[in-house]
Amino acid sequence: MTLIDENLLKISRKYLFPIIEEKRDSLRAQFPETQFVDLGVGDISQPLVPAVIEGIKQGATEMGHKPYGYGPYQGYEFLRETIADVEYGHVAIGANDIFISEGINSDLCGLQELCSRSARVGIIDPAYPVYYDLNLLAGRENIVRLPLTQENHFMPRPPEEPLDIVYLTSPGNPTGVAMTYDSLKEWVDWAKTHNALLFFDAAYAAFIRSENVPKTIYEVEGAEDVAIEMRSFSKSSGFTGLRLGYCVIPPQVRLFDEQGREHQMAKLWLNRQSTKTNGVSYPIQRAGEAALRGEGWHQCRAQVDAYLAGAKKIRHALEEMGFCCVGAEDSPYIWWQLPGHDSWKWFDRLLNECHIISIPGEGFGTVGEGYLRLSGFVAGELADLAVQYLQLLGAHCEN
Amino acid sequence: MTLIDENLLKISRKYLFPIIEEKRDSLRAQFPETQFVDLGVGDISQPLVPAVIEGIKQGATEMGHKPYGYGPYQGYEFLRETIADVEYGHVAIGANDIFISEGINSDLCGLQELCSRSARVGIIDPAYPVYYDLNLLAGRENIVRLPLTQENHFMPRPPEEPLDIVYLTSPGNPTGVAMTYDSLKEWVDWAKTHNALLFFDAAYAAFIRSENVPKTIYEVEGAEDVAIEMRSFSKSSGFTGLRLGYCVIPPQVRLFDEQGREHQMAKLWLNRQSTKTNGVSYPIQRAGEAALRGEGWHQCRAQVDAYLAGAKKIRHALEEMGFCCVGAEDSPYIWWQLPGHDSWKWFDRLLNECHIISIPGEGFGTVGEGYLRLSGFVAGELADLAVQYLQLLGAHCEN
Repeated sequence: MTLIDENLLKISRKYLFPIIEEKRDSLRAQFPETQFVDLGVGDISQPLVPAVIEGIKQGATEMGHKPYGYGPYQGYEFLRETIADVEYGHVAIGANDIFISEGINSDLCGLQELCSRSARVGIIDPAYPVYYDLNLLAGRENIVRLPLTQENHFMPRPPEEPLDIVYLTSPGNPTGVAMTYDSLKEWVDWAKTHNALLFFDAAYAAFIRSENVPKTIYEVEGAEDVAIEMRSFSKSSGFTGLRLGYCVIPPQVRLFDEQGREHQMAKLWLNRQSTKTNGVSYPIQRAGEAALRGEGWHQCRAQVDAYLAGAKKIRHALEEMGFCCVGAEDSPYIWWQLPGHDSWKWFDRLLNECHIISIPGEGFGTVGEGYLRLSGFVAGELADLAVQYLQLLGAHCEN
Repeated sequence: MTLIDENLLKISRKYLFPIIEEKRDSLRAQFPETQFVDLGVGDISQPLVPAVIEGIKQGATEMGHKPYGYGPYQGYEFLRETIADVEYGHVAIGANDIFISEGINSDLCGLQELCSRSARVGIIDPAYPVYYDLNLLAGRENIVRLPLTQENHFMPRPPEEPLDIVYLTSPGNPTGVAMTYDSLKEWVDWAKTHNALLFFDAAYAAFIRSENVPKTIYEVEGAEDVAIEMRSFSKSSGFTGLRLGYCVIPPQVRLFDEQGREHQMAKLWLNRQSTKTNGVSYPIQRAGEAALRGEGWHQCRAQVDAYLAGAKKIRHALEEMGFCCVGAEDSPYIWWQLPGHDSWKWFDRLLNECHIISIPGEGFGTVGEGYLRLSGFVAGELADLAVQYLQLLGAHCEN
């Protein structure tokens, strides 16, 4: 009799997005004429830029001229060198430290597999729910929540107790707050003291505009000893439907076996990838290169700027209505502190009164209760419509 | 201190392909003028067909017209319906039973994750090494080898003892032998008796030409209750560098929890995919559709036919030289029974005397010792060159 992995049964809650989709779809069926504005799932709302489309097409054309079989497990050198040059030219990270993947989700899944099931894990709260679910699925039981609150300016602080793995996100999701140099430095120093590993999720790095916010954790002294950085083309270049990302594993990062012997994480990762994957689609890797070079870079940057402008408009509208928010500065997200504490109730109000889809903060962790996340992946007229819709809320309530 | 997952240390052997690549590269460096023929890694040797290239380009163009964000976790309906129609039109499998992925490796990795670590696993020997490695990495200890020998015509027989999961490959890799209806029926009946699960790897289904060989396991009565079939566009349509595959999970297939309650495998899989993945690249899914329809289907079929013709030439050449082989009928592989038992010695002879790269049977399991696998992914002139080279062996030895 084939038994189920019992860890699967621990994830008892229904995943957030399906619940939201159900509510949205039922309302859409009720009001088929109404245009809803989706500020829920953090997904792009602009088409792919011309240079990226051209990159895919060129890659496809090349594949008609000679056989392109299995690609290298680590990703093509042309892409790794472009990333090293464009994103890491100012720090000590090279093409050899970069490992191409289908996106941050694959890297999150795979990287934790290298670590023992007994690892003590620190996860920020609120956070991207996958961090927690993955560790539950792996059978880890020692999971500590690191609260992000107004008191710590939504920047996590290292705990007193030692941990083995800590997940950090900057710019933050859902909070939209980016960690400053000092805040990151405190984590790097703590990780060195405790021989801990930092999984640094930098999915929104392209949105950073503030001066005191590092563009990569490797700007922080010593980070190359303890931190793995994960990046994606999803939000920086509109690749959510194309699937391309990467992680950076400097050669200094180590794991230890029970005898205390050191193992190079980068080498373990390449071994894992060569067993469990067959590399990433060639035309998509060419598209990634196109997104980082010349025209492509400017076109993608313009999209990110448009999203940031949209997010700012939404935040300002809320603030003018007297609400408190953070985010929308180095991130597309607005983290909206609600006057009441029931975030699902506010989700419903927004949906019913304003035709706006949001995400209740509770979906990102218990500390998220009392907040709503609004995604600012709206540019131009769509952002204006979102603002108009939000103002309907004022008409209905007195805060 | 962050500890390593100790299961990683169990995979002590160096993975086969790097050893082969080292030997090849050192010989290439020694004889830079010589053209080597690669009959090693089972990778394509023809460029992508025009219809598939066009499919990618059309997909990319569409993405410039409107935002294509995250795709559905299960894969786009247009692709699932095309597969259901073209590959499963004659059996009771529909679009809802098909789950798109980046290839069989991802599915192999993910599907076993749903099963308990205590599962008793049956793995054919010789086999694709990833089956074994994955189960070692998952910490499974009860792994039974099911030998494929001349005596059982390289078709595995169900064991006396009960098992929970069995990996079957047909057409076989490395043996190149496809399982007949009767052989598969015996497995399906056995699996039903033991409440076992069959992971049926049909990567080479497109090469089947024999009449008594089912094109899918679902042609076998009752298979929909116990079998998950995995397929890929890699070898049927030259997608090794594009990454596209799928698994079929009929709604009847179940896992059991410790209380004996049933869980639908298809539902568990979709939950798993929605946590651990973000779907497959849109233009690549369009390319998959193009490979199965109209001109694309004929162009891909012609490539497979050319590979089959190449494989047959190689097998005949070996047989004319007095060697024994199987394969090259419903598969691109030739499984060459060596006169001596040292397959690495023969690998070296082939490399040094004939400039041919092969794979020693031992690399696929201990039962594979005494064999070499030759990949017939050579078409036209390349196949002729392989035959010419093989004949050099005759000049050097007296068998």
